[in-house]
Amino acid sequence: MSALSFELLKTSSDSLARRGRIRTLHATIETPVFMPVGTQATVKTLSPEELMDIGAHIILSNTYHLHLRPGEDVIQGAGGLHKFMNWPRAILTDSGGFQVFSLSTLRKISEEGVEFRSHISGEKRFLSPERSIQVQNALGADIIMAFDECPPYPADREYVLASLLRTTRWAKRSLVAHERSEEQALFGIVQGGMEIDLRRQAAEELVELDFPGYAIGGLSVGEPKPLMNEVLEHTTPFLPQNKPRYLMGVGAPDDLFEGVMRGVDMFDCVLPTRIARNGTVFTASGKLVVRNAANAKDYAPLDEKCDCYVCKNYSRAYIRHLLKAEETFGIRLTSYHNVYFLVKLMEKIRASIENGTFLALRKQFYDAYGYNRDAMC
Amino acid sequence: MSALSFELLKTSSDSLARRGRIRTLHATIETPVFMPVGTQATVKTLSPEELMDIGAHIILSNTYHLHLRPGEDVIQGAGGLHKFMNWPRAILTDSGGFQVFSLSTLRKISEEGVEFRSHISGEKRFLSPERSIQVQNALGADIIMAFDECPPYPADREYVLASLLRTTRWAKRSLVAHERSEEQALFGIVQGGMEIDLRRQAAEELVELDFPGYAIGGLSVGEPKPLMNEVLEHTTPFLPQNKPRYLMGVGAPDDLFEGVMRGVDMFDCVLPTRIARNGTVFTASGKLVVRNAANAKDYAPLDEKCDCYVCKNYSRAYIRHLLKAEETFGIRLTSYHNVYFLVKLMEKIRASIENGTFLALRKQFYDAYGYNRDAMC
Ligand SMILES: [Zn+2]
Ligand SMILES: [Zn+2]
Repeated sequence: MSALSFELLKTSSDSLARRGRIRTLHATIETPVFMPVGTQATVKTLSPEELMDIGAHIILSNTYHLHLRPGEDVIQGAGGLHKFMNWPRAILTDSGGFQVFSLSTLRKISEEGVEFRSHISGEKRFLSPERSIQVQNALGADIIMAFDECPPYPADREYVLASLLRTTRWAKRSLVAHERSEEQALFGIVQGGMEIDLRRQAAEELVELDFPGYAIGGLSVGEPKPLMNEVLEHTTPFLPQNKPRYLMGVGAPDDLFEGVMRGVDMFDCVLPTRIARNGTVFTASGKLVVRNAANAKDYAPLDEKCDCYVCKNYSRAYIRHLLKAEETFGIRLTSYHNVYFLVKLMEKIRASIENGTFLALRKQFYDAYGYNRDAMC
Repeated sequence: MSALSFELLKTSSDSLARRGRIRTLHATIETPVFMPVGTQATVKTLSPEELMDIGAHIILSNTYHLHLRPGEDVIQGAGGLHKFMNWPRAILTDSGGFQVFSLSTLRKISEEGVEFRSHISGEKRFLSPERSIQVQNALGADIIMAFDECPPYPADREYVLASLLRTTRWAKRSLVAHERSEEQALFGIVQGGMEIDLRRQAAEELVELDFPGYAIGGLSVGEPKPLMNEVLEHTTPFLPQNKPRYLMGVGAPDDLFEGVMRGVDMFDCVLPTRIARNGTVFTASGKLVVRNAANAKDYAPLDEKCDCYVCKNYSRAYIRHLLKAEETFGIRLTSYHNVYFLVKLMEKIRASIENGTFLALRKQFYDAYGYNRDAMC
């Protein structure tokens, strides 16, 4: 068996929405799928068992963070990331490229790679396509990413083009460096900023390299949502039908609908756990700030329409109390519910694609939840 | 059925250690027992399901904290503390007396009660025997405590005597105020500072009031451990054999052995969850500071001798990484293991009392763990 197989189960007649199935060594993943983010080898506050209860079959972890702490040698010594963090299902790691550009300081980009200072220790480090793949090979995720450069928003067309060409060259070097292609599927990353014709060029260059899957990077970096959607719909048509497509770092509820509609299969976003820590939860009728005084004696669940562990057993009043008292268990409960909300939303989206009712579900969701209500992921 | 029954199953020939069984409306509790502390209606970082997995049948919660936040009205509105926090087994609440004296500011003690300022809001509050019992009746725990005054250490004999006499008068008022004696068992609290003869006097005065159980307060307040043990062995002999005895706020591993040896049935202590938050865990061979660099590549479990969920699934290396990265899941894991360690230790102690090998177990434990290694609870 190869590291990854993708089966396209159904396409839609009224949008680009697709229903598919990815198989890796550790999991069968129904798509479209939302992947919870476990930046530092843990999905914040949740246990692996809880993630399985929630119905997650794949999670994301960050190469940049794990490389700096604890270091890939520590994780390799444990037998890889799955064993280290006790997660038996699939894992996807990013290349570290995005974090090098967004988190570290004093970056020096050359054709060879990127020199940067760790945001933790301040020490000088270097990541290149070869080094990123080496780290990702050591971590052992099911799906790994080519090392890319992610231009900021806004950026000059000239810069975006140069960066795109370099990303293609780095993609080739990533392919060559990859030593575990029987176990780990390496995806190429389509860049091209907000330049529609460059997105097509990037996609076509990468498709020629025949990756088992394609990521779309450089979106949700500060641009308005309509622009993101426009760029997206000028990118997916140039990616092969028979390979999974992953929209990186995007996953607010409305972005999920908009991405699926434009032919995306995989999403990830820290939003559910991040807002959970601030005491905010998704509900069918929009976001709820649980911390608000209005919930002090509200014994209803977080979301009347939700059947998760949290909503079955705890009230808004209790969770508000825990959050006000700064008790960890409160954040566990809001995190659990929020991740469940997105995972279940994708389940509903998958069913709607199967039934040919995706656009109806989208309208129904927006009518209740509101449209364009969430910040970028 | 009355609110509480106590069955003395076995006594020892070579110490005062006893094996018993408490029944309340919500649980059957084998004694001696360690009660995890859920100060603010949650045992820090853990879920009710995890506490049940661990084998806890009774937990403690704090009246003072719940009275100030969220307020007993919020909890009563949820149907009581059990429902509010989703804990179906037994709960014990203290009277708030200890916290009024240790946490609040500007206390004014009178015969009527104590005026104090909330350590959260700074506002003036008042607790008296009647008010404390009213709050505890609203919370609805299985076992509640009479309102007492806990003298500091050291304290004048004169002060201790006056305080003891007041505590007895308050105990009588607590009994009168108690409105749910069919569902909640009210314990008296033996004070008397470090004055051995006053401890006897306090015990005898309370025994006359015929409480369904007796707490021993005012120990582990800063005195040396040998002194605590001496006071203890001059207290328990004056308590009835057929009623449970609860040593308040004590529960380091060696204190559990010393308390059981002197005839104590119930213990509570924040130590396991507090040291867990600092990255320290109990092991059969003493405490381990998981955060230490020595554990960076140590793939052994926290405690080779432990069969808990954490020790079965995670390494020291992983847990150290989580703690260094300030990930909540790390503290969940150390907390789980530490509470499990004490709950299982009590299980072993109970079995040893049944087999007549308690003193041998004690020696064996100290040989491996060390004696007098832990701070006061
Ligand atoms: Zn829910
Ligand atoms: Zn353990």
